[in-house]
Amino acid sequence: MGEHMSENMNKWRERNGGIACVKGFRSAGAVGGIKDSGKPDVAVIIGDKPLVSAACFTQNQAAAASIHYCREILARDVHRGVVINSGNANCCTGDAGMKDTLAMASQVASELGMIREDFFVSSTGVVGVPLPMTAVNTGISRACEVISAQIYIDQDSFLNGEVEVEYSAADAILTTDLVAKEIAFTHDAGYQLAGICKGSGMIHPNMATMLAYVLTDALIDKEHLQDITSRAVARSFNSISVDNDESTNDTSLVFASGASGIRIESAAALADFEDMLTHCMQQLAHKIVRDGEGATHFVEVKVCGAATEGDANTIAAAICDSMLVKTAIAGNDPNWGRIVVAAGYAGANFELNKVRILLNNILIFSEGSAHDDEIRPFISVSGDVGDDGDNTIVKRSVLEESMHAEDIFIVFDLASESCSATRWTSDLTHGYISINADYTT
Amino acid sequence: MGEHMSENMNKWRERNGGIACVKGFRSAGAVGGIKDSGKPDVAVIIGDKPLVSAACFTQNQAAAASIHYCREILARDVHRGVVINSGNANCCTGDAGMKDTLAMASQVASELGMIREDFFVSSTGVVGVPLPMTAVNTGISRACEVISAQIYIDQDSFLNGEVEVEYSAADAILTTDLVAKEIAFTHDAGYQLAGICKGSGMIHPNMATMLAYVLTDALIDKEHLQDITSRAVARSFNSISVDNDESTNDTSLVFASGASGIRIESAAALADFEDMLTHCMQQLAHKIVRDGEGATHFVEVKVCGAATEGDANTIAAAICDSMLVKTAIAGNDPNWGRIVVAAGYAGANFELNKVRILLNNILIFSEGSAHDDEIRPFISVSGDVGDDGDNTIVKRSVLEESMHAEDIFIVFDLASESCSATRWTSDLTHGYISINADYTT
Repeated sequence: MGEHMSENMNKWRERNGGIACVKGFRSAGAVGGIKDSGKPDVAVIIGDKPLVSAACFTQNQAAAASIHYCREILARDVHRGVVINSGNANCCTGDAGMKDTLAMASQVASELGMIREDFFVSSTGVVGVPLPMTAVNTGISRACEVISAQIYIDQDSFLNGEVEVEYSAADAILTTDLVAKEIAFTHDAGYQLAGICKGSGMIHPNMATMLAYVLTDALIDKEHLQDITSRAVARSFNSISVDNDESTNDTSLVFASGASGIRIESAAALADFEDMLTHCMQQLAHKIVRDGEGATHFVEVKVCGAATEGDANTIAAAICDSMLVKTAIAGNDPNWGRIVVAAGYAGANFELNKVRILLNNILIFSEGSAHDDEIRPFISVSGDVGDDGDNTIVKRSVLEESMHAEDIFIVFDLASESCSATRWTSDLTHGYISINADYTT
Repeated sequence: MGEHMSENMNKWRERNGGIACVKGFRSAGAVGGIKDSGKPDVAVIIGDKPLVSAACFTQNQAAAASIHYCREILARDVHRGVVINSGNANCCTGDAGMKDTLAMASQVASELGMIREDFFVSSTGVVGVPLPMTAVNTGISRACEVISAQIYIDQDSFLNGEVEVEYSAADAILTTDLVAKEIAFTHDAGYQLAGICKGSGMIHPNMATMLAYVLTDALIDKEHLQDITSRAVARSFNSISVDNDESTNDTSLVFASGASGIRIESAAALADFEDMLTHCMQQLAHKIVRDGEGATHFVEVKVCGAATEGDANTIAAAICDSMLVKTAIAGNDPNWGRIVVAAGYAGANFELNKVRILLNNILIFSEGSAHDDEIRPFISVSGDVGDDGDNTIVKRSVLEESMHAEDIFIVFDLASESCSATRWTSDLTHGYISINADYTT
């Protein structure tokens, strides 16, 4: 992250405006009545003209009907958008599930004068309950009405906030999220990139799914967009875990309208675009982790010095997914032993005597043993970290104090080769148990 | 389990007496002073004569010094026993760790007139803190004194409880366990098999490890014993999870003294012995799960109808390890959706439309959708499970009531081929979080 920001600070930067600032798109949320709460539960995003699209879907074997449908239409040269419902995942709903997915795409296509295969479909919410199609139909009609009105208004008036949208798409895709998640960037070359997402556990009590939609008005061909999207998803949405579950409906969609007229074609422009998309998706992914069920800490785990990026990722994932690491962090406990143990069973080889562990930038473990002053009180007289190489002693109290910060940084350095990987997670608290066990469905 | 019991009910059965009933062994626990609590923390088990031994150790890359040492001596033809300390894992303790492990083996060998390589060493407890060798020495001396006294007493007096052992080995190996874990079996052929183990989380706050020691007075060669032990461990200790962590010190040791004079040689006798050892280890493994940190339910997950045992095991592990399945069970919630989701991301292929899920012997999911009367109220008029094939409707209230039992049974039937696997886990409760997060070390 930090690297991206500094390398690219002159080329692209965060801006206000969310997905509404990206040219060539219209979007809206609406209340269909799927959710008992009366909150918005249908979103539609469309392109004024055909869109180039790329996507990554869940690898879950029990994928929902909408995932099967989206995979089928992904290969088409162009699409026109996506229709999303929240409150019901339309998963494990038998043959009726696919019928309902197709009906959603057909309805939005018919209301906006396009064809069914123009539209992707996403669903998120309760698993195993048939989709309440009357409510879904109502929601789609209302969202399409709002969008049809937008088509006839001036783009600038819309961007300047002169046109009010009652419910945003970012709001309408939420389930158990506490906050809407939206971010936008502008590139000096003159194009925009913005995204929305939802997710708080990878799955909630019967509530499934991480969904993300990123829009850009850059002009880019489908093949490049898919390659870049696949890599960016791997380093963002596929590098976070709240409770390790890959849901049945996980979807990341990227649409390019080309409306800015800026063509992304040269190697430099493509690299720049990839950096920006990766950063956008990472920022969205971090918002999901920070909104993690019961989370009180945001945890970044960087594994470096590995022989391959795969090894680094394997170890980082084991540390992130360890219930013992996550509960230690919840308890503000600098328990490096649990980090060593998790790394040890990850499945990638390393030499324990070479390993260096930093907790919140404090070197706490190297040469096979701890630097804690309770454990190695007499090895060195130096009190400053780093001054005395690996024999430096760390004050336990300083380490413990550092654990009270909201953001916790773990570095696990294999000190062998040069590959690295970074993953993010939340801690595991009583709040998580309360959300997932106490309130039965 | 049930199968073993019925198939073999005429050949072997559970008996009283613990490991003390196995001929050719002596064992004792002692207080060395490693634990602040003053509880016993050193155990010694020895054979009166050389023992045939087999073992399985942790695959953790950060394995403790004792594991490295045990792996080195395992290939020897015979051994004389094991010395175990609890309260300190002697892991991540640098070069001093191996020195201390060797010193433990040397001391017990010297006190009992044998050689160092005769003795395995196990350690369990806090990670990263040097072993307090003064306390360890005291404990080993005391345990050896008790054992030396036992050698000169009559075996029958010992078995009849006429000789009192102040601290048993089963007590002395415990860390955060709430109860000691010991079980014994007798075979009609005239030999005994008994075991002890410890473990409550796979790892505790800085407390590591599952340890198991199984003794038999049957006569069996080393190669067969190792093959049988490896398979039995896979289907018992390696088929349970409390918090998914494979610790740095996990050890399963099997010793055969041959003192019964019963030779296990024929294919039938070997199969029988394997069944008995597997059952013994499964019963010990279940005791660990039932003593799981904060556990309120014992959960058995059987996956059947799979193409390979590996596939079945992969899916069973994903279900057992899912925090969402475990929290649902903690909340007495028959949330089959979470079971489908976990199976779906396990990494083994299946056809969702073929899958049948039974929760506590109630068919709740088949043909791609649920049988819950809240979800499919009008499909069938029959109320009895199984009467009406896969269209039977299940009363939600009946299903919910069944979740209040202590033992929960999940069957996930792929209905494809004929391979199966069974795993066991505990639920995930506020108690677990309290043990692992609230009380910082």
